[in-house]
Amino acid sequence: MAAGRRRRRERRAPSTGVPRLPWRDLVNPLPPVEVLSADQIEAIHQASLRVLAEIGMKVLGSDARSRLERAGASVDHEEMMVRFDPSMVEEYMALAPPEVTIRARNPAKSVTLGGNHINFYPVGGPSFVSDTDRGRRAGTYAEMCDFLRLVQCFDILHAGGASPFEPLDLPAESRHLDKCYAAITCHDKVWSASMLGGFRARDALEMLCIVHGLDYAELPENVVGLGNINTNSPRQLDESMSDALTVLAEAGQPVVVTPFTLLGAMAPTTIAGALTQQNAEALAGMVLAQVVRPGAPVVYGGFTSNVDMKSGAPAFGTPEYVKATQAGGQLARRYRVPYRTSNTNASNVVDAQAAYESEMSIWAAVTGHGNMIAHSGGWLEGGLVASFEKLVIDAEMLQMMAEYLQPIVVDEDTLAIDAIAEVAPGGHFFGATHTIARYETAFYAPVVSDWSNFETWQERGSLTATQRANRIWKLLLEEYEAPPMDPAIDEALRDYITRRKPEIPKGV
Amino acid sequence: MAAGRRRRRERRAPSTGVPRLPWRDLVNPLPPVEVLSADQIEAIHQASLRVLAEIGMKVLGSDARSRLERAGASVDHEEMMVRFDPSMVEEYMALAPPEVTIRARNPAKSVTLGGNHINFYPVGGPSFVSDTDRGRRAGTYAEMCDFLRLVQCFDILHAGGASPFEPLDLPAESRHLDKCYAAITCHDKVWSASMLGGFRARDALEMLCIVHGLDYAELPENVVGLGNINTNSPRQLDESMSDALTVLAEAGQPVVVTPFTLLGAMAPTTIAGALTQQNAEALAGMVLAQVVRPGAPVVYGGFTSNVDMKSGAPAFGTPEYVKATQAGGQLARRYRVPYRTSNTNASNVVDAQAAYESEMSIWAAVTGHGNMIAHSGGWLEGGLVASFEKLVIDAEMLQMMAEYLQPIVVDEDTLAIDAIAEVAPGGHFFGATHTIARYETAFYAPVVSDWSNFETWQERGSLTATQRANRIWKLLLEEYEAPPMDPAIDEALRDYITRRKPEIPKGV
Repeated sequence: MAAGRRRRRERRAPSTGVPRLPWRDLVNPLPPVEVLSADQIEAIHQASLRVLAEIGMKVLGSDARSRLERAGASVDHEEMMVRFDPSMVEEYMALAPPEVTIRARNPAKSVTLGGNHINFYPVGGPSFVSDTDRGRRAGTYAEMCDFLRLVQCFDILHAGGASPFEPLDLPAESRHLDKCYAAITCHDKVWSASMLGGFRARDALEMLCIVHGLDYAELPENVVGLGNINTNSPRQLDESMSDALTVLAEAGQPVVVTPFTLLGAMAPTTIAGALTQQNAEALAGMVLAQVVRPGAPVVYGGFTSNVDMKSGAPAFGTPEYVKATQAGGQLARRYRVPYRTSNTNASNVVDAQAAYESEMSIWAAVTGHGNMIAHSGGWLEGGLVASFEKLVIDAEMLQMMAEYLQPIVVDEDTLAIDAIAEVAPGGHFFGATHTIARYETAFYAPVVSDWSNFETWQERGSLTATQRANRIWKLLLEEYEAPPMDPAIDEALRDYITRRKPEIPKGV
Repeated sequence: MAAGRRRRRERRAPSTGVPRLPWRDLVNPLPPVEVLSADQIEAIHQASLRVLAEIGMKVLGSDARSRLERAGASVDHEEMMVRFDPSMVEEYMALAPPEVTIRARNPAKSVTLGGNHINFYPVGGPSFVSDTDRGRRAGTYAEMCDFLRLVQCFDILHAGGASPFEPLDLPAESRHLDKCYAAITCHDKVWSASMLGGFRARDALEMLCIVHGLDYAELPENVVGLGNINTNSPRQLDESMSDALTVLAEAGQPVVVTPFTLLGAMAPTTIAGALTQQNAEALAGMVLAQVVRPGAPVVYGGFTSNVDMKSGAPAFGTPEYVKATQAGGQLARRYRVPYRTSNTNASNVVDAQAAYESEMSIWAAVTGHGNMIAHSGGWLEGGLVASFEKLVIDAEMLQMMAEYLQPIVVDEDTLAIDAIAEVAPGGHFFGATHTIARYETAFYAPVVSDWSNFETWQERGSLTATQRANRIWKLLLEEYEAPPMDPAIDEALRDYITRRKPEIPKGV
């Protein structure tokens, strides 16, 4: 297997000529950008504690309500309203670990959430898929597998995802099983369980146990998966979400709790107000995880943006989004838990807007010390579409950010006084000894950027970055090889799926 | 005149429906991002002092060489080589002021360089112009005036520029006079003098004296212009540049000194080495300005990027560029002088690449505390082209950054606990009292971003951001009104140009 991996790695670059960065545990060497003062963070923290204590969170699942009640929350079961005493919130949040490492099928691709680690996750959840050949359409399982294969091709994506878009050719009640199988076989990275109901989360974990040779009871000592729940903002936690959260927390697998707080729609129009609500909802979810299993790994999810007040349409990568993202990181660090952010945009096409809104998001996420940057590759149209071309453009933007974060080396050799002395005034360094020793690896080599002059670019067809991205993902799919898989595990996975499918009632 | 300005402002938004941010003295409330430690900055400083002392700078102008020699530099006139003692550099640099305010024709648009002030300057210098209707072409004076009119339409651009691209229909030796006239009449903002020879710099200052009602001798007490010189990297200062620098410094007008240090071409392949060389060259230019006039305002220009090592083509907005830009700010602050950066990209078309490379540049410039961000609006194709559509896209990106820098207000009102209490769980805030009171001005309103849903976007023609930008600049040109100008000043400017043109020999 090691020899197989090495062979593939050697073949990769020559076969397509698409340069890519190698796998790297990306660590941010810079301090986070802080847009709020410590006093302002404390004010938002206190306001969110007031929301939780005085106004409350509607928790639709009776099991979750009962668990919270037993742990000390004040519960009105009639109204399904849960109110949290501030001391309860503080005590349970103190149990959450600051960092968690998730083991991937390929151990070299295990990831750590927390500290200064940055993990780029691909897009997840859209209803549609698009590429510039076939346009925007409902996706199929086969296309979804192609998308996951491309995710495997880019080592800058630390996680592989399970569902970059919905495979609508499969039955809704059981397609999560097929998605898990695709996530396990198309790539060898970490991926997220579907959190739409406890049984889906459980199926994902069962299949991960097969992959890693674990008994289900061994899961809490073996972190191999994760899942993201969204609160139904404002102030509601749906039963499917709390059930899945409970399954994951019981198994000691990380739960990401992400309120979706659009200013002016699901949250107040002010950033401070939306952050207050985001914080209250995130705390409610993370506290529930601690109640289920003290010390369960949790991740603080921030997803605060604004709407277009003329149309109510969601906007992403906006100035408000950037500020809320950086401030969200400050709140997550206030509770010493990892922080999840996103790479977003609201464009309907892979154009300059898609790129500049994504860059605003990526810079916000990275400078705000997001540990898990969701939707990093392929998100388009406010999250309704997964785009093949956007995946390639995103990979470029993420790689550029990863290279930016590599520290500058300053020493006698790099200061290059001898090289400066060697080249005559007004001359050039192309032939300098210092240059020749370094030129092959000196600089970041782009995936899709074209730096050729106008005439050369014209001769090559005057292609935009999006048109070049279209060519690139097809080249990469041609060279793709599935990561090696033990046939016995593969068979066990297929057996599990075959057994489970008939057990699941239609329409759930 | 005041009434006239008010009337235009009131009319602007309704006439085109293109929302734009108002004029604002933009101040960065955040500390700079520092990619180098204090020790590393000191190492680069010391290395560049060694370059200046031991290797030297070739200064082609005999006047500049003699001035430097009289001030204590060691000069080899035969080889035109000037070597600077470190103490001479430190002493002269200590004379440079940390901040300078430049008065605009419209006093409300005066700008301050230094501290945390951010000033966005439009593109300057390309040989070509492009728009998506007429393609890439040599530009004319009439088109250049249209470009400057658009610059006037965007208050996010703090300066107006004099030459967004070369008006190649005018004779080379005297077209600087026409460019100055366009800069004075098409907009009412600060602009840069041409620094291609002392006589051009002098003409610009003479015309600025006419505008501001000054005698030339009064200039040092009245800062009304500025100019940028480039060293001819590596380690050479051309005569046209040192002559223009001398004219500006004598007149007490700010001189921006910008080495163009492309890693692997005009500088070593290492960032530390390129910064060492950039720093040496910038110091040489700024010291010359201090020698000409102690206390003359100077600006440290950083323009370090890398080439594509396969083709030698310049690359911009790269990871190396971002790091060098932020580190350059640290060096400028080491000398307590304002810092000039740029908004760059190497794309041949206004596409996703143009946007993401520009965003990398803008984030680098803003987080690195660039005070003067040159080429902010309209630069394309590595600076060979000024693009009408890129100008509009850039305006959007700059406005988003300016809005991001507005601090979050955290108080009882914005924390919005009452609004959170008012909206039922799972409900929405569209009708909430808190929302209604704020919705019209709550969020940033975009210039070119389209946040409509896919169906609406399709109905409107499925336009990319670049196609929408094409429509927008035409709309803005339709509504453009020249800023008011005293007819007597206008006549004096025309007289000056008429008198000067025949005096200038052809081919200079």
